[in-house]
Amino acid sequence: MKKRIGQYLMDCISAVGVDKVFGVPGDFNLTFLDDIISRDDMDWIGNTNELNASYAADGYARIKGIGAMVTTFGVGELSAVNGIAGAFAERVPVIQITGAPTRKVESAGKYVHHSLGEGNFDDYRKMYEPITTAQAYITPENAQIEIPRVIKAAINEKRPVHIHLPIDVAAIEIEVTEVFQFDDNQFKDIEKYINMVKEKLQSADHPVIIVGHEINSFNLHNKIVEFVEKTHIPVAQLSLGKGAFNEEHPYYMGIYDGMLAEERIRDYVDQSDAILNIGAKLTDSATAGYSYQFDVDDVVMMNHRNFKMNETRNEHISLSELLDALISIDYVNHSDFPKYQRPKSQDYELNHDPLTQATYFKMMQDFIKDDDIIIAEQGTSFFGAYDLALYSANKFIGQPLWGSIGYTLPSTLGTQMADPNRRNVLLIGDGSLQLTVQEMSTMIREKVKPVIFIINNDGYTVERKIHGEHAAYNDIKMWDYKLLPTVFGGADEVSVHDVSTSESLQQAFDQINDQPQMMHLIEVKMGVHDAPIKLNAIGQAFAKQNG
Amino acid sequence: MKKRIGQYLMDCISAVGVDKVFGVPGDFNLTFLDDIISRDDMDWIGNTNELNASYAADGYARIKGIGAMVTTFGVGELSAVNGIAGAFAERVPVIQITGAPTRKVESAGKYVHHSLGEGNFDDYRKMYEPITTAQAYITPENAQIEIPRVIKAAINEKRPVHIHLPIDVAAIEIEVTEVFQFDDNQFKDIEKYINMVKEKLQSADHPVIIVGHEINSFNLHNKIVEFVEKTHIPVAQLSLGKGAFNEEHPYYMGIYDGMLAEERIRDYVDQSDAILNIGAKLTDSATAGYSYQFDVDDVVMMNHRNFKMNETRNEHISLSELLDALISIDYVNHSDFPKYQRPKSQDYELNHDPLTQATYFKMMQDFIKDDDIIIAEQGTSFFGAYDLALYSANKFIGQPLWGSIGYTLPSTLGTQMADPNRRNVLLIGDGSLQLTVQEMSTMIREKVKPVIFIINNDGYTVERKIHGEHAAYNDIKMWDYKLLPTVFGGADEVSVHDVSTSESLQQAFDQINDQPQMMHLIEVKMGVHDAPIKLNAIGQAFAKQNG
Repeated sequence: MKKRIGQYLMDCISAVGVDKVFGVPGDFNLTFLDDIISRDDMDWIGNTNELNASYAADGYARIKGIGAMVTTFGVGELSAVNGIAGAFAERVPVIQITGAPTRKVESAGKYVHHSLGEGNFDDYRKMYEPITTAQAYITPENAQIEIPRVIKAAINEKRPVHIHLPIDVAAIEIEVTEVFQFDDNQFKDIEKYINMVKEKLQSADHPVIIVGHEINSFNLHNKIVEFVEKTHIPVAQLSLGKGAFNEEHPYYMGIYDGMLAEERIRDYVDQSDAILNIGAKLTDSATAGYSYQFDVDDVVMMNHRNFKMNETRNEHISLSELLDALISIDYVNHSDFPKYQRPKSQDYELNHDPLTQATYFKMMQDFIKDDDIIIAEQGTSFFGAYDLALYSANKFIGQPLWGSIGYTLPSTLGTQMADPNRRNVLLIGDGSLQLTVQEMSTMIREKVKPVIFIINNDGYTVERKIHGEHAAYNDIKMWDYKLLPTVFGGADEVSVHDVSTSESLQQAFDQINDQPQMMHLIEVKMGVHDAPIKLNAIGQAFAKQNG
Repeated sequence: MKKRIGQYLMDCISAVGVDKVFGVPGDFNLTFLDDIISRDDMDWIGNTNELNASYAADGYARIKGIGAMVTTFGVGELSAVNGIAGAFAERVPVIQITGAPTRKVESAGKYVHHSLGEGNFDDYRKMYEPITTAQAYITPENAQIEIPRVIKAAINEKRPVHIHLPIDVAAIEIEVTEVFQFDDNQFKDIEKYINMVKEKLQSADHPVIIVGHEINSFNLHNKIVEFVEKTHIPVAQLSLGKGAFNEEHPYYMGIYDGMLAEERIRDYVDQSDAILNIGAKLTDSATAGYSYQFDVDDVVMMNHRNFKMNETRNEHISLSELLDALISIDYVNHSDFPKYQRPKSQDYELNHDPLTQATYFKMMQDFIKDDDIIIAEQGTSFFGAYDLALYSANKFIGQPLWGSIGYTLPSTLGTQMADPNRRNVLLIGDGSLQLTVQEMSTMIREKVKPVIFIINNDGYTVERKIHGEHAAYNDIKMWDYKLLPTVFGGADEVSVHDVSTSESLQQAFDQINDQPQMMHLIEVKMGVHDAPIKLNAIGQAFAKQNG
């Protein structure tokens, strides 16, 4: 069947489950955009800028499994690199398509706009190499090889890929010989490694599993539960990967964040004689500056394409294969372990005193519904929210490894577009919001209905806790946040709330629950130096690390 | 004298004339920021995001000669790459300093936040290589060699440089042995090339000079005038580099933009038998899709480090040296040439009809004062504004080679901070404004007073003229632009104007002139498909190029 390469590319992207494509138009992608907007199975979501588009595609991919975006050459694709790098770091598959000058313009080495003006066209693709798992330059000859190759790489590695699509190539018709099909990984011989893990477990008295973000990336929640239910090994999870394990499960112990963890959990993990790290990374922010007391060399590290136990390493096994094989281990743990204790509800007083961060998060615990998607911005919001007790159906999205402030607002556009019927609750602060605020306009245009809590505490509190508590560089301009929906043409679609006490926060909660058909924006005023306890401690750990 | 390396770096940056540093704080740069804010000769200008910071530093550099910015590792520096790439393409020297993890964290290969989580720390620096003219990794041992080296490279090449500063290194004291001094270029033997040019001129009947952006980058305005006044060769200038030649000078002919140029100028240039291209690049947007009628191989190309005449090339001679040597040529042109005709003033009618783009730019011509800095966004604004007749003291800033929409608003923060007493007039459209709008907040905080004209014509008109005139992907959300100053806390500092007719535009002009102590924001409503004549033509050329 004859198809334009642009059509074929979108057929492949549709085949892996993408139904919304994010991006910004530019003259090197316009005719290709026609091949998106003409489809019944695909919506074009124009963003206000390309960084925001990359964050939105990342958010979408965290819910749908994979996302896609389109930029123009140079100016567009280079504005997206931070978002794509974040997707690489945190293992989120995003297909980044750059509409590029024609092959004729390129081969003539013309001084074309959006080039560096030196006749080279290869620089930007090279800049993408460290932050994508595969790259392709599409031609009529290679389209049916390269497009499937990079999309499969994105899925297999759960990492972004970069497609350079000359705009003349997009319009060329090719004979499509086979429908794109995604084939699963091939199984590799991993018995040797599984036996090593089995022996370790069989000689252990207090085994523990630490889970992290790769469980979410590879959607291995059911497999990890199956492994736990068979082996009875208790589970701790990192903040980097919250949501990896069902917090209502009887084998869940709680968050492990090094010295900050609840004492009984911390002691159990630190003293465990068999730590299985499954899809987790012991980063500085996840462990309060590497403050674990176990010997990291004794941990069985099971990451995607990175198995490590003592001196043995394997960089080929996928995490999914590894979990399949782990389930075959014949072992049952009999040791006792600290069970997760969910926080008490209504553990606060409603009054007219200035709202504190501590009360804010206690109240948020009661506000969360069992199907919510919670998105928490790196800063006071994330470091307060990662201790929330989730329900099994909740999703929790943060970016604690990459930690790019401003990420969550556009990401929430993506998570909400991935499933418009689910309530998305964004927790963000003023400093972060200012970086990417204009994506609220796209939310209003697309008529999605997230609930957005903006902490207004006059600056970069997360930085103040690290250094420069009173320094001018941690101040920001005070905005009138409640006017934002009106500026963005959404006065009628967005309900706005002004919160500064526990009493007014509860009123806002009630109104939000009464009006699920509205988008809600809640400005929450809190003290400039107030912060969740854990942020104070992590700030000190970061300051020490930088000394 | 003992100095912290952070202090020494800022001493060097101060020595080359920088007095404002742009950027965003992050934990890997915070202690270094103390070495900026503690100085009497330097202000820290915190931006709302790093892309905006890079645009602001670029704008500042276009006025002051060089600019500087600071980001944090990874998330910060990668958000700035588009702006730095633009500075590379258009030859604007910006010093991009990244505060990075300590050498100890790096050498241990730790999984630190803002890294890709794989223990590598070298990826981002490599990504900067194609878009900077020099890069340095600062250590205590090399600080006094590497810092001067890269700053000199920025000045010599008028291009950005990247400095990777581990945050522990910034705090280390070193014995500073000599004050940083910028030494001029060394003269190189260029007689051979100058003789070739001389012979070409001596056998020519209708010589012409085409000037462009490198004249602005290297601040060679006086030298080019000196050469012209000695040789009497007439000058045409490209839109890419408007401001390179004094438009009040008797040897100025006008803008040359290929087939779009005024007929008598076009004919003179196209039929010239000796075209000297001095610091100009014949890009697609500057020449309406390479629509010149001369043979480009016959042009004497004199660019920085790129002299080309027939088969002879030299990639070492600086443009400044070349101009010094050209002035020594003993040649006087006696041919006649078309003189620039300044547009008539008040060549429009004040009425209540919907304002057109044509009238808008005619009126703008009369509004411009002789000392204004005019910043024009790529789109209807630039393609209308590049035909404005400037006065000798005007500066004109656009970004037509790189062409990143959204550039000019943050850039205007930079140009205005470089000289707060000069009136800056920004011409921008709604689509572009939405990308980087939050930098208006920094303008308000810093109390600068630009005059900002926002064309509200409901979308990306520049794209509509290329492809998809009615396509949804060229639509944007309608905002309430006049509310922006209030949202950003500037209701009292910004005077807001609503314009939709020539009558109301004139009223706005009068009020702006009456209130020079205020920042002004003017929303100018115009038809969605109305555009400057030249944009229509360039849009068609771009569409053809993409076919």
